[in-house]
Amino acid sequence: MPQTDLPLDELWSYRPQVSRPADFDQFWTSTLQESRALARETVVSRAETPLTELAAWDVTFSGFGGDPIKAWLLHPTGPGPFPVVIEFIGYGGGRGLATDRLGWAASGFAHLVMDTRGQGSAWPNAGPGATPDPHGSGPAAPGFLTRGVTDPSTSYYRRLYTDAVLLIEAATQLDIVDPARIAVTGVSQGGGVSLAAAGLSGLVRAVLPDVPFLCHFKRYLDHASADAAGELRRYLSVHRDSTDTVLNTLSYLDGVNFAASVDAPVLMSVALMDDISLPSTVFAAYHRFKNADKEMSVYPYNGHEGGGTSHWSRQVDWLRTRLH
Amino acid sequence: MPQTDLPLDELWSYRPQVSRPADFDQFWTSTLQESRALARETVVSRAETPLTELAAWDVTFSGFGGDPIKAWLLHPTGPGPFPVVIEFIGYGGGRGLATDRLGWAASGFAHLVMDTRGQGSAWPNAGPGATPDPHGSGPAAPGFLTRGVTDPSTSYYRRLYTDAVLLIEAATQLDIVDPARIAVTGVSQGGGVSLAAAGLSGLVRAVLPDVPFLCHFKRYLDHASADAAGELRRYLSVHRDSTDTVLNTLSYLDGVNFAASVDAPVLMSVALMDDISLPSTVFAAYHRFKNADKEMSVYPYNGHEGGGTSHWSRQVDWLRTRLH
Amino acid sequence: MPQTDLPLDELWSYRPQVSRPADFDQFWTSTLQESRALARETVVSRAETPLTELAAWDVTFSGFGGDPIKAWLLHPTGPGPFPVVIEFIGYGGGRGLATDRLGWAASGFAHLVMDTRGQGSAWPNAGPGATPDPHGSGPAAPGFLTRGVTDPSTSYYRRLYTDAVLLIEAATQLDIVDPARIAVTGVSQGGGVSLAAAGLSGLVRAVLPDVPFLCHFKRYLDHASADAAGELRRYLSVHRDSTDTVLNTLSYLDGVNFAASVDAPVLMSVALMDDISLPSTVFAAYHRFKNADKEMSVYPYNGHEGGGTSHWSRQVDWLRTRLH
Amino acid sequence: MPQTDLPLDELWSYRPQVSRPADFDQFWTSTLQESRALARETVVSRAETPLTELAAWDVTFSGFGGDPIKAWLLHPTGPGPFPVVIEFIGYGGGRGLATDRLGWAASGFAHLVMDTRGQGSAWPNAGPGATPDPHGSGPAAPGFLTRGVTDPSTSYYRRLYTDAVLLIEAATQLDIVDPARIAVTGVSQGGGVSLAAAGLSGLVRAVLPDVPFLCHFKRYLDHASADAAGELRRYLSVHRDSTDTVLNTLSYLDGVNFAASVDAPVLMSVALMDDISLPSTVFAAYHRFKNADKEMSVYPYNGHEGGGTSHWSRQVDWLRTRLH
Amino acid sequence: MPQTDLPLDELWSYRPQVSRPADFDQFWTSTLQESRALARETVVSRAETPLTELAAWDVTFSGFGGDPIKAWLLHPTGPGPFPVVIEFIGYGGGRGLATDRLGWAASGFAHLVMDTRGQGSAWPNAGPGATPDPHGSGPAAPGFLTRGVTDPSTSYYRRLYTDAVLLIEAATQLDIVDPARIAVTGVSQGGGVSLAAAGLSGLVRAVLPDVPFLCHFKRYLDHASADAAGELRRYLSVHRDSTDTVLNTLSYLDGVNFAASVDAPVLMSVALMDDISLPSTVFAAYHRFKNADKEMSVYPYNGHEGGGTSHWSRQVDWLRTRLH
Amino acid sequence: MPQTDLPLDELWSYRPQVSRPADFDQFWTSTLQESRALARETVVSRAETPLTELAAWDVTFSGFGGDPIKAWLLHPTGPGPFPVVIEFIGYGGGRGLATDRLGWAASGFAHLVMDTRGQGSAWPNAGPGATPDPHGSGPAAPGFLTRGVTDPSTSYYRRLYTDAVLLIEAATQLDIVDPARIAVTGVSQGGGVSLAAAGLSGLVRAVLPDVPFLCHFKRYLDHASADAAGELRRYLSVHRDSTDTVLNTLSYLDGVNFAASVDAPVLMSVALMDDISLPSTVFAAYHRFKNADKEMSVYPYNGHEGGGTSHWSRQVDWLRTRLH
Repeated sequence: MPQTDLPLDELWSYRPQVSRPADFDQFWTSTLQESRALARETVVSRAETPLTELAAWDVTFSGFGGDPIKAWLLHPTGPGPFPVVIEFIGYGGGRGLATDRLGWAASGFAHLVMDTRGQGSAWPNAGPGATPDPHGSGPAAPGFLTRGVTDPSTSYYRRLYTDAVLLIEAATQLDIVDPARIAVTGVSQGGGVSLAAAGLSGLVRAVLPDVPFLCHFKRYLDHASADAAGELRRYLSVHRDSTDTVLNTLSYLDGVNFAASVDAPVLMSVALMDDISLPSTVFAAYHRFKNADKEMSVYPYNGHEGGGTSHWSRQVDWLRTRLH
Repeated sequence: MPQTDLPLDELWSYRPQVSRPADFDQFWTSTLQESRALARETVVSRAETPLTELAAWDVTFSGFGGDPIKAWLLHPTGPGPFPVVIEFIGYGGGRGLATDRLGWAASGFAHLVMDTRGQGSAWPNAGPGATPDPHGSGPAAPGFLTRGVTDPSTSYYRRLYTDAVLLIEAATQLDIVDPARIAVTGVSQGGGVSLAAAGLSGLVRAVLPDVPFLCHFKRYLDHASADAAGELRRYLSVHRDSTDTVLNTLSYLDGVNFAASVDAPVLMSVALMDDISLPSTVFAAYHRFKNADKEMSVYPYNGHEGGGTSHWSRQVDWLRTRLH
Repeated sequence: MPQTDLPLDELWSYRPQVSRPADFDQFWTSTLQESRALARETVVSRAETPLTELAAWDVTFSGFGGDPIKAWLLHPTGPGPFPVVIEFIGYGGGRGLATDRLGWAASGFAHLVMDTRGQGSAWPNAGPGATPDPHGSGPAAPGFLTRGVTDPSTSYYRRLYTDAVLLIEAATQLDIVDPARIAVTGVSQGGGVSLAAAGLSGLVRAVLPDVPFLCHFKRYLDHASADAAGELRRYLSVHRDSTDTVLNTLSYLDGVNFAASVDAPVLMSVALMDDISLPSTVFAAYHRFKNADKEMSVYPYNGHEGGGTSHWSRQVDWLRTRLH
Repeated sequence: MPQTDLPLDELWSYRPQVSRPADFDQFWTSTLQESRALARETVVSRAETPLTELAAWDVTFSGFGGDPIKAWLLHPTGPGPFPVVIEFIGYGGGRGLATDRLGWAASGFAHLVMDTRGQGSAWPNAGPGATPDPHGSGPAAPGFLTRGVTDPSTSYYRRLYTDAVLLIEAATQLDIVDPARIAVTGVSQGGGVSLAAAGLSGLVRAVLPDVPFLCHFKRYLDHASADAAGELRRYLSVHRDSTDTVLNTLSYLDGVNFAASVDAPVLMSVALMDDISLPSTVFAAYHRFKNADKEMSVYPYNGHEGGGTSHWSRQVDWLRTRLH
Repeated sequence: MPQTDLPLDELWSYRPQVSRPADFDQFWTSTLQESRALARETVVSRAETPLTELAAWDVTFSGFGGDPIKAWLLHPTGPGPFPVVIEFIGYGGGRGLATDRLGWAASGFAHLVMDTRGQGSAWPNAGPGATPDPHGSGPAAPGFLTRGVTDPSTSYYRRLYTDAVLLIEAATQLDIVDPARIAVTGVSQGGGVSLAAAGLSGLVRAVLPDVPFLCHFKRYLDHASADAAGELRRYLSVHRDSTDTVLNTLSYLDGVNFAASVDAPVLMSVALMDDISLPSTVFAAYHRFKNADKEMSVYPYNGHEGGGTSHWSRQVDWLRTRLH
Repeated sequence: MPQTDLPLDELWSYRPQVSRPADFDQFWTSTLQESRALARETVVSRAETPLTELAAWDVTFSGFGGDPIKAWLLHPTGPGPFPVVIEFIGYGGGRGLATDRLGWAASGFAHLVMDTRGQGSAWPNAGPGATPDPHGSGPAAPGFLTRGVTDPSTSYYRRLYTDAVLLIEAATQLDIVDPARIAVTGVSQGGGVSLAAAGLSGLVRAVLPDVPFLCHFKRYLDHASADAAGELRRYLSVHRDSTDTVLNTLSYLDGVNFAASVDAPVLMSVALMDDISLPSTVFAAYHRFKNADKEMSVYPYNGHEGGGTSHWSRQVDWLRTRLH
C-alpha cells in the first residue's frame, strides 16, 4: 500500500468543514438521559482465567436502553484504587477472552475492556463477543455500519456510543477504580468510540485514540478503498436516493464533531499507508481538539495496524505523566 | 471454476445422512401457529410504475411475529384468477423495483415477489429491500446466516421461512389468485426458501428451486469455497466451542429436511461449477422428494448463476403442464 | 472502489480537446452509403417465447456490408404505431433471449434490441448473441476493441456503428413503429453506440446513453483501471510502435466526436465510482451536445452499474415527455 | 500451485477414452487438399536484424485457404542444408521479433518460427504477431478457442493446424533445409499444434511438444482452473444448449487423436503443477504415441512454464541423436 | 478455505513413510557438540518495559556456532524457581517486544521467548527481531526455507534448531527456573522448532506444538497451497535438477523424524482448514510420539490460526497437571 | 495498470532533491579499494552448451571482499577483440543458463552476464543463480533489499555494486575484450546496478539502463505499489523507529546519486505504467546525467516490462554508433 492520502505537510494543515447538526448536543443529551433512566446495577463476578498474578472480573453494566453489556476488568492484585484505562474494540471484534489484553493491568492500571454489542464474530483472530444487540434494523448491508442508518435515533452507533459513556459512569462506582484518573482508548472503531465517549462524558482525563475510524464520513465515503468503505457505499449504491438521509445520520456520529467537545489531553496516532482510517479523516478530528496538550504519532510506513505494541509502550509513558 | 464437487454419475446416487431433530415438525408447527395468531390483514395498494400493459401492486402481509412484510404482485391486466408463482429472493437482495421481474406476469401468471426481511442492501445490482427485520441478535458475523444461530427459536431463517409460508396463505386470499394453482420458486437462497415453504405449507402445487442454497449445511461448511461459506465458518472459527450448538440450529433449517416433506412435482436445477450451492448439497435434497414427478436440470459448465433465463423459459413450459 | 476521477465540480467544467480527423464526416458518409447500397430486406418472424401479454418478433436486418444482423422486437399487443426505443448492448453481451428485457414494451413502447455482431459469449449472465461477424482481422488482443484497429476502415466499431444506424433506418419501415418517435439508448458500450447512432442518423428524437463507454479514448487509455482498458493497452504494449496509428483509428470512433453532431434531447447518466466509463470521459461527451434540453443523472456511489433499474424508471418518465 | 492432477504413478497408467469422429481422417485429408489447391509460392526476404553471426529471413508461405502466413527463418551463416526445427507459438503470442529465439540457429539448426494467425497481441511479453486471420466467426468469447467452434469446418484451429502442416511442406522446398531431417516443437498451444502437425504430415522425423495444450478437451473443460479453461467454459455457460455441438468440434481438434497417428520419436514434457495443460491431458496424448522411442520429461515442481531453457538444452541433445 | 486435506477419520489413521537418513542421530549429535564447544556465557539484563507486576529480562545466550541469540525472560515477581515455558516463534516473526506475550508469566510460569535469527521483519504485526543470522547462503528464494538447503550442514534450520536446544540448556542455569519442569511450545514454525527441540534435548518434560509447520516436507511440497509452499517450490522450479538434494536436506529437518524421539507428554493442535500446516503433515508427526500421554486438539473450522487464545487456556490447564 | 505517476510533461521537468551523504565518494572509494586488495585471479573455463556458432565461457571473477562471482561470457567465434556489453540481472534472477541471452554475441559483441550473488531462485522463469552471498545479515524481510540495511557498510547492495565495478575491471583483462569499448546495461535491478557501475568506474563508454530500479528511494517508498515496495516498507512497518537509519543507508545506494557521476553517453528507458520503477524515479536519475548525449525511450502503455526486445534492437543500433 503506498501513501493513501495527502502528503504529510498538507495533513498538518488540513481543516475541512464537517457538517454538525443544529441539535447535535440535544440529540446526545436526551439519548444519554433516556438510557440513564433505564439503568440497572452493574454486576461484577470473578472471571475464570488461569491468571495468578493479576485479578480478572467479568462485568455486566447497563448500556443503551438498559441493555446488559459485558466488559472485562483486570487490575493488579494489590489494593487500589488504580487509574483506569477504558478500552473499546475494533470493528468486528469483541472483548475476547479475559486474558487477551494483559498489558495495562501488568503495568499497574485498572483496565476495562468493553464488549461491542452484536460484534465479535467476524474473523478467527477477532476476540469473540458475548453481548447481544437486541435491536433490529431496516434493510442493511452486511456488517454494522448501515444498521438503522436511515435515522440517527435508530443508528447502531447511537447505541454503541451510549454504551461507552455509561461504562465510564459505571467505572466511577467500582472501588478498585480512581474516578479522578480515567482514560479512554481504542484502535480503529475503538478509537472512534473513544472520541465519542470523551466528547460526551465529562469524566475523562486522557484520550488515546489509535488510527481512529468513524471520522469525516463524507471523505471516507468518497475516497477510502473498496474494502474499507464497502458497507456504506454498497448500501448507497443500492438505495440510490437515500444519500442525504444517510449523510445526515452520519453527521450525528462523526468523530470530528465529538473531537470538538474534548477537553482532556490527547495522544493520537495515524498511519500514512492506512486505507481505512484515511489520514485526512484522522487529522480532521485532531485539529478540532481544544487542549493544547495534544500529540500525534505519525507512522509513515504502516497501514491500518498503525503503531502496534510499540505505540502502546509510548501510550503507557505518556499516560503516566497525565494520570499521576 | 472447475467442477466443484463429485462427478455427475456419483451425484445421481449421493444420498447422505442429514440429521433431523426429533421435534422438527413440532418446532415448525408451533412456530407457524404462533405467527398465525399474530396475523394482521394483508394490505394491497397500487404500485407506482411506468407499466401500461401489466398490473402491479404493493403488498404488505403479516409475517413472522406479525411483522409487516412487503411483496410485489404483478399480473396480466385481464380478469383472473390466475395461477400464481411466488418467488423468493437470493441472498443479499430484496424485492427490488416492481418492474424488475416482468416475465411471469407477461406470460399469463400472477407473480408475487416476497421481500427478504433486513436484506436488500448488499450490492449495487441487488434489488433494494423495503422490509425491516425488527429482531436483534447475539454476536453475529456480518450477514444473516449467523444471526441468532445459537438457538433455532432465535434464528433469522426461522423468521424468513415463516414469512414465506404466510405469504402463500395470504396469496390464497387474493381475488386475482387461483388458490388451487400455487407454485413457489427462487434462486439460491430463494430456492432454499421455496423448499422450506413447500415442505411446510400444504397449499403448494409445484416447486421450482434453482441452484438452491441452505441444504446439507454440514457438507457446505466443510467443503464450500471460502467466499461462499465464509460467514458460518468465520463464526465457528471465532466461537470455537459452539459447533454442536450451531449445527443443531442448522438442522432445523436444512432444505434436505424440508424436501422430505414435499409432495408436489418439482423442477430443480443444479450447476456443476457452482461453489456456493455445491451440487452434492442440491442432490442431497433432490433425492428426498417423494413425488415421482421430479426433474433435475443439470448445467455442466455454469457456476452459481445456473441456467439463467434459459432455465426460466423451461420453467414456464414445465409449469404450464402442471398448473393447467 | 473510491471516486475514480476528478471531483464532481471539476467534471462539470471539464472540456478537453479531443482530436477529430478532417475527413471524419466524409468517412462516415461514405461508409454508410456503401452499406446502404448492399442492403437486403428486413425479415421479421414470430419469436418463440412464453409471452402471452406482449408481442415478440425475431428481426433480421441488413447491417454493415449487407451482413444479416439479428434483433428482437417487442411491443404491446394492441395496435400501433408505437414510439420505439432502440437499444444497444454492453460489451460482451448479445441480444440474449427475447424475454430478457420486457420493461419498455410493458410500458407501451415498441422496443428493438440489436444484437452485437460477434459478441454475446463472454460471461454466463451475458445474453447469448446470435449474429456472426463475418470479417477477419489482423493480430488482435482477445476481445473486440483491437480488431482491425490499425485502420479506421477495418475497425470492428466501424461495422458495429453502421449496424446501429441501419437498424434505425430499418425501424422506420416497420408498421408497428412510429418513425417520428425514435429514441436510442444503451448501457456502457451500448451507450457509446447510441451516441454514434444519434450523431450519424438524422432520425433520432431522443438519446439516452447510460454510463457510455467508447468516449475520450486517450484519457481512457491513460487512466482507466487495468481490467477496463486492458485490451487496448495490452495491444499497444505489444505493438509498441503503433500508438499513433491506433489513436488515429480511435479518433474516428470516439463518442465525443459523435456527441458534437447530436441535435436531439439527451438524458445521460454517469457514476462517480465507475472505473470503466471514467466520469471525465462521459462529461467530455456531455459538454458537446448542442441541444439545451440535456440532463445528466449523477450516481455518486455507484460503479459501472450506474443507476440500474432506478434510472430506467427515470428514463421512461423523461422519454414520455419527449416522444409524446 | 500444488499438484493439479492425479499422482504421478496414476498418470503413468492413465489411458482415458477420447472420442474420435468416424470421419476424422477424411475431414483432415480434404481440409489439407483444399488448401494445397490454393497454395501460392513461398516468399523469402532478408529480415532486418542486428545479427552478424546468424542469417535471418522473413518468410511468407501459403497457409489455410491460401492465406499468407508469416514465419521467421534463422540458420547458421555456413552452407547448409541443415536439419530444421519448426516451432509453433504459445497461446496469445506471435512470432515476435526475428531475434527473439536464437538458440536453435546458434546450435547449428535451421529454425522456422511460425506466426499464429490473428494472435500475437495478448500481453506485453508476447511476441507481436504479423499475420491476420481473414476469417470472421459467429458469436465467440474473447480469445481464439471458441471462434467458429460450432462446426469443425469453421473452427479457428482447423485453420491453424493447416498452416502448420503447410509450413512443413514449404520447408522442404527451402534450399537451406534438409527435408529428411525435420522436427516440430512448441510450448503449450505450440505443443498442441506440433502434435497435430506431426499427426497429419508424413514428413516429420522428430516431435518435441512441451507441456502441450489442446489435448483431452473434455477433462480440461471439467477440471482445469478458471483462468485456463475460461474461454470455452464461458462460451458454454452462455450457450447452454451447445455443449454437444462444441464437444463434437473439439473432437476433430484433440491432440490425443493426433498423437495416435504420430510415427516419429517423441520427447515430451509435463509439469505436475500445471493448471493449464493438466498433466492427465498430456499423458492421455503421450500414451497414444506408437513409436517405442518416446520419452517424457516430468517437472514435478513446475507450473505451465515447464522445463524452460533447461528442457531446451535437453531437447538439443536428444534431437542431435535423432536427426543425425 | 474449505477442508484442506483428508477427512478427519482418515487423518486419525494416516501414517505415511517419511525417509530418515541413516546418520540422522549422528548428524545432530555432532552438530550440537560443535556448538556446545563454542558456547559463551548467558547474559541477562533487565528489560526496559512499563511492567510493574511482572519481571522482564533481556537474555543473550550462545546458540549455533556460538552466535549470540536474544530471548525475553518473563516471570512473576515472587521468588522462584518457577516451571518454565520456552516458546519459539512463527515464520517471519521475531521475539517482538518484551510485553507482547504476558500470559504465561501472569499465570505463574517463567517464560522464555526465543528470537528467531534473521527473522522478525516480515509483516507489520510480526514482532521485530533483534538477532542477526551471521551466515550467508548460496542462491536462495526470498525467505528462510531455502537458505543453505543444498546441504544439511549449511541449512538455516540446522542453526535454528540448535539455538532452540541450547536455550533449553541455558535455561537450566537460570536461578529463577526449575530445571525439572521445562516445557516447549510454539505456533507454526515455532511448533516445528518445539518438536525438534523436544526430540533433541533430554531435558523437556512437556511439549505443546500448535499447528506445527516443518513436518512431512514431501507432502507439504506436493499439496500445500501456493502461498504456503511457495519458497521451496519456487526454488525447485528454478533449480530443476536439485530435487533429490533438497529432499535429502529436508529429511534431516523433518518434524516427523524428531517426533519419533520425543518421550515427554504432548498436547498438539491441528486445524482442518489450515493450508499451511496441512493436517496430514501434523498427524504424520502426531502418530510418531511414543508417550501414551498425548492429545490432539482438532479445530474443524479454523485455518492456520488454529485454536488461538482459547487453545492457550487449554494449554495452561493441561500443563499444570504435567509440571506440578 | 493506468499511468502510475506524473503526466509525461511534468516528468520531463521533475528534478527532486535527493540527499547525498557528505562521505558518499569516500565510502565508495574505500569500499572498492578494500575489495581490490583482496582480489583473486579471474578464472575462465569453457561453458558446456549446445552452441556451435558462438563461443561461451564460464567466468569466475573476484568480487566484493574477494568473493568468487560467476558470469557468462559469450562472443562471436571469430577473432576479437570485441566491444563488450556487461549486463546485470533483474531482481530475483541469476545469470541463468549460458544460452539464455544470445543476442549481443550473435550481433558481434562480447557479452558478459554477471550473476547476482545470492539471487537466482525466485520464480520459475528466473535464470538460476550460481553465486553464493557468503555474508549474513541482521533481521531482514524476505528478499534482498533489507539485508544489512541498518548500515551502509553491511548493506547487500554495497556488495553487489562492488561486484559490478570489479567485473568491469576484470573484463579489461580478457583478451577477447576491447577495453576501450565497454558498455553496461541491465533491466530493473540490473539497470540500477548499471548506473552504480557507470558512476563508480571510469572505464565505461556507454550506459544503457532499462526501467532502472533502485533510484530515488524515498519516493519509491512512499508511492510505489504494495507488491513493488513491499520489502522495504514491511521492514519499516516492523522496525518503526529505524526509518532514518534505513533512509541514510539507502542514500549511499541511490541511483540518482550515481547518475550524477556518469560521464558516458546514456540510452535509458522508462514505462509510464510501471508501478515498480516509478517513472519519476527514473527521470530523477535521468536529469542528473552530465553528458549531453543522453536519450530517454518512453514506453507509454507498458508496465515494468518496458520496451522488451524492441528496445533491445534500438540499443544495438544506438550502441554501434557509440562504440565504433
